[in-house]
Amino acid sequence: MTAPTELSKAVETYWASAEARDWTGFAAVLADGVVYDLPQTRERVRGKEAYVRFNREYPGDWHLRIQRIVAGSDQVVTWIHCTVGLEEMYAVTFFTGDEEGRIATVTDFWPEAYEPPPGREHLVERY
Amino acid sequence: MTAPTELSKAVETYWASAEARDWTGFAAVLADGVVYDLPQTRERVRGKEAYVRFNREYPGDWHLRIQRIVAGSDQVVTWIHCTVGLEEMYAVTFFTGDEEGRIATVTDFWPEAYEPPPGREHLVERY
Repeated sequence: MTAPTELSKAVETYWASAEARDWTGFAAVLADGVVYDLPQTRERVRGKEAYVRFNREYPGDWHLRIQRIVAGSDQVVTWIHCTVGLEEMYAVTFFTGDEEGRIATVTDFWPEAYEPPPGREHLVERY
Repeated sequence: MTAPTELSKAVETYWASAEARDWTGFAAVLADGVVYDLPQTRERVRGKEAYVRFNREYPGDWHLRIQRIVAGSDQVVTWIHCTVGLEEMYAVTFFTGDEEGRIATVTDFWPEAYEPPPGREHLVERY
């Protein structure tokens, strides 16, 4: 368990390094045994080397910025805005840290747009 | 802006009341002008009355429990596990509060399962 501000800084470096394709800086904030989970596909990546490679090899000219960051006592959550060409998407990511303030677990969600189900038009507006 | 523990308690009551279909308890932790956003459908619900109704009228025998809660200085995030019959899903929700400690904004994401894209099998395992 790490102090919230410490993990929060590691998370900011994580996203800034990814955006800059600075894989040395990215690796520096990861625990050696970092575990990445993607619950939507039930994929898991174990260890710093594989996880840096997973990100470095990720296809597309993607760009991202933090839209919200929430730092709790032992976890940090980000909501990022991501563009790939003209496509826009967002991701929500949960982070936990180790005792050295490095990122120990990363859990990513990539929610996709969908059409609202019928029957609630009387309560909602669209934006 | 409310103290993190205060908003955190309101959020716990929000989910417990929803699970119990206690709409009076649910309404009690909402600001009158609560705004609900669902970025995936770009739907918005404004005001306590409409928002309680939106939840009360939500179809299906849904049940939910908090899997993770992260309380920051002015925001709370939950990751909930939800079942509807045999179907399992999860939601990630961002909350902000008003000065009375009630919930002022709710932003919900419902990520859906999908098949992983090819090309990264050398780095991932499935769980």
